[in-house]
Amino acid sequence: MAKNLTTRDKDYSRWYNDLVVQADLADNSGVRGCMVIKPHGYAIWEKIQAELDFRFKETGHVNAYFPLFIPKSYFSKEAAHVDGFAKECAVVTHYRLKNNPDGPGVIVDEDAKLEEELIVRPTSETIIWDSYRNWVQSYRDLPILVNQWANVVRWEMRTRLFLRTTEFLWQEGHTAHATEAEAVAEAVQMLHVYGDFVEEYMAIPVIRGVKSDNERFAGALETYCIEALMQDGKALQAGTSHFLGQNFAKAFDVKFQDKDGEVKHVWATSWGVSTRLMGALIMTHSDDHGLVLPPKLAPIQVVIVPIYRGEEELQAIDEVANALVADFKKMGIRVKYDHRDTYKPGWKFNEYELKGVPIRIAIGPKDLEKGTVEIARRDTLTKSYLPMEGLASEVSSMLDVIQVELFERAKAHRDANIHFVTTWEEFTAALDRGGFVSAHWDGSPETEDQIKDKTKATIRCIPLDNPLEEGQCILTGKPSTQRVLFARAY
Amino acid sequence: MAKNLTTRDKDYSRWYNDLVVQADLADNSGVRGCMVIKPHGYAIWEKIQAELDFRFKETGHVNAYFPLFIPKSYFSKEAAHVDGFAKECAVVTHYRLKNNPDGPGVIVDEDAKLEEELIVRPTSETIIWDSYRNWVQSYRDLPILVNQWANVVRWEMRTRLFLRTTEFLWQEGHTAHATEAEAVAEAVQMLHVYGDFVEEYMAIPVIRGVKSDNERFAGALETYCIEALMQDGKALQAGTSHFLGQNFAKAFDVKFQDKDGEVKHVWATSWGVSTRLMGALIMTHSDDHGLVLPPKLAPIQVVIVPIYRGEEELQAIDEVANALVADFKKMGIRVKYDHRDTYKPGWKFNEYELKGVPIRIAIGPKDLEKGTVEIARRDTLTKSYLPMEGLASEVSSMLDVIQVELFERAKAHRDANIHFVTTWEEFTAALDRGGFVSAHWDGSPETEDQIKDKTKATIRCIPLDNPLEEGQCILTGKPSTQRVLFARAY
Repeated sequence: MAKNLTTRDKDYSRWYNDLVVQADLADNSGVRGCMVIKPHGYAIWEKIQAELDFRFKETGHVNAYFPLFIPKSYFSKEAAHVDGFAKECAVVTHYRLKNNPDGPGVIVDEDAKLEEELIVRPTSETIIWDSYRNWVQSYRDLPILVNQWANVVRWEMRTRLFLRTTEFLWQEGHTAHATEAEAVAEAVQMLHVYGDFVEEYMAIPVIRGVKSDNERFAGALETYCIEALMQDGKALQAGTSHFLGQNFAKAFDVKFQDKDGEVKHVWATSWGVSTRLMGALIMTHSDDHGLVLPPKLAPIQVVIVPIYRGEEELQAIDEVANALVADFKKMGIRVKYDHRDTYKPGWKFNEYELKGVPIRIAIGPKDLEKGTVEIARRDTLTKSYLPMEGLASEVSSMLDVIQVELFERAKAHRDANIHFVTTWEEFTAALDRGGFVSAHWDGSPETEDQIKDKTKATIRCIPLDNPLEEGQCILTGKPSTQRVLFARAY
Repeated sequence: MAKNLTTRDKDYSRWYNDLVVQADLADNSGVRGCMVIKPHGYAIWEKIQAELDFRFKETGHVNAYFPLFIPKSYFSKEAAHVDGFAKECAVVTHYRLKNNPDGPGVIVDEDAKLEEELIVRPTSETIIWDSYRNWVQSYRDLPILVNQWANVVRWEMRTRLFLRTTEFLWQEGHTAHATEAEAVAEAVQMLHVYGDFVEEYMAIPVIRGVKSDNERFAGALETYCIEALMQDGKALQAGTSHFLGQNFAKAFDVKFQDKDGEVKHVWATSWGVSTRLMGALIMTHSDDHGLVLPPKLAPIQVVIVPIYRGEEELQAIDEVANALVADFKKMGIRVKYDHRDTYKPGWKFNEYELKGVPIRIAIGPKDLEKGTVEIARRDTLTKSYLPMEGLASEVSSMLDVIQVELFERAKAHRDANIHFVTTWEEFTAALDRGGFVSAHWDGSPETEDQIKDKTKATIRCIPLDNPLEEGQCILTGKPSTQRVLFARAY
């Protein structure tokens, strides 16, 4: 067990924070609610970015970049949207500092006040749709399939590293289409791009569904989402994709001449995932020893540590290790040989365990004699010995096995924690045990609000292809046509 | 010549702006001084990013991410730094909007005023060095070799797309070292990483040198730079790398215990290039027909356009074109086959010329008969006919040739425009002709200021390995030990 790492049983929330900081993923900064993403954390985020970017491009999208600042007046143009975001906006009011005439340091120059305040983007629908007005004249200019990698700011009162920070990194897709059907298909497609990525790369099983009215994005007609279950039984929304109808096109007057000659408003979607995914990753797989990483996202997949006394032993090990490194690289394995003499092997073992390197290989003088290596899996904490001969292909298979088993383990945990209930007592008891609770609901926003007030649980989603089933709402007893998934959530 | 594109002779500045907008590289936004980088422009920026990121990693750097906001007090800690940036800072003063009680829309909520204002980063030295204090205890924690890809904001009064915008995208490296020598070596290394990249990838010849006192970065002891010459004879600073000494380490109290047991301040560098490089790219190679792109940075290197009447002809061309596309892709050529029936060939020719696709291939029914294609080079506007047989390898070679010739042409232009002068009359005449002017200078900041006031020219750099040569300052006649390069600059 890593030094100073609180165990999950003792305090899950503190374990999470300890782990993020000690595994060098991120740290708090001197700016309230803003984090520093450290190199190890950022390297994982880069892997997430690269694969998502690849999948976006494979589905026909291109990247662009829109301004950080949004004029205040743009914000008010879509009513639901401004309601959703106005309360958490960082506002730029001045554009200059000056020397403090009354002492040291600098102060805001009151002569440099902006005529119209600028909002630091919490999301970019308004500034983007203001641009799209100039991009679209004819049906031939559609669809617009644009994504942006950017930082956004939402002034959160309670923040947690990766999960909820004032500034965070994300991508936001913003597409424009000639027809409603095409826009809906795009929103659904991107939901599945997210779902497939999170399952295949992050080894996190997700439930794909739609949000209830209460949980819908401010300005959307339909919000699709993927929902994951963390080890502590709380749910986490891992990504959303919105069908925006013509709300933004109407607010920003984005029209096109269709093939039939008619001038029509454009149909829209937006979709995003953020550095929050890092939180999901950590809380799905990690343990009391530190981070556990799925091989596909691990910046280093295999670390080789020499166990030696004196230069001579090290040289002999170096030779073998360098040959292994070359073999591994040929197979596309991301490998590091750590023969720094400033740290002892025990320190290195701890370090790579804490940082989640999937496979650790130790080589000592006895291994050289026997032609074997000691190989340790981070996920299971099991050790075995393998011959050096053909090691690269064994390790490659082991990485594949780890990737699959991490997903299977998380899925078994998730599946074991979906509780089907019919009464209010069962409902609250299930919520206290943790997990998703599948229950009947009468479909009204008021009932959802009451349930949230009483239990802190929200409707996470109505799964896609949810079977219809008659029943009674767990709170009001009113008739219901289907079960929905409740949970307490991050 | 592209429709509506002003010629360079007529108005170079307007030509530039027309080109940026019409080639779909970028556009002005509704936010003063902030641009929208459109997909075509962003795709080129992505190529720049990818190659630079690769070169940074090859030289041992890793990426991280630091907050967008900097508390005002951090800014004052390094005196020269705050002087350099205080006058152009966007300042966040509030964190909430509320409904306007007196009418429609939203207003700033005066109850949500920040205790300490936050500056939107114009550069990140201060917030990063505030973090580094926690990263470094021992010599074993050094060096820190971190880079960040980010947006920054400098409140510029006069803005131009890519060249000078209020918000821009860049990377900023921030490294920490145990010794002065190591930090200086890092700053010089990164200068050459920039120089090599810009020459090899962007086909822009640069002069590598150091800045005079006046032009040095606010807070640096030495600023290394690469300087390029645009077609209109104005210079453009394409990248800088700073040796910061211990200024920031002292301001933010970043110390380490060295091998000898002593506690010392850390030595620093920072270095950056920005979306300004896009401006340099455009103004080095493009012509009155539109953008000219070096093949290594072209998102599409080859476009194939079918010339046909009716479905039958198109089908026959499709078959051949698809086979060529497959061949080209195998050789790693980025190729697009544009058989959209919504646009005519002439429109497509214009479009790809404007957007700078290096090679255009046209295939018509006669080509099918003869087994040839028409191939047009964007840079020279020359056409030739080549057999389809073995076309991929011919095209691949042609791309290499274009890359080299673009560089050679730019270098010939640059070299022909370095003027060596000895008198003030020669100096001002040379400046009016345009180009770099190599002249003696007495080494004083006051003289440099006077020259700038009289001519608008600044010292662009003192080239690395500048030969010593006795002479007299062109303005004051005082003794000088070396020539330096002056120019009017972007």
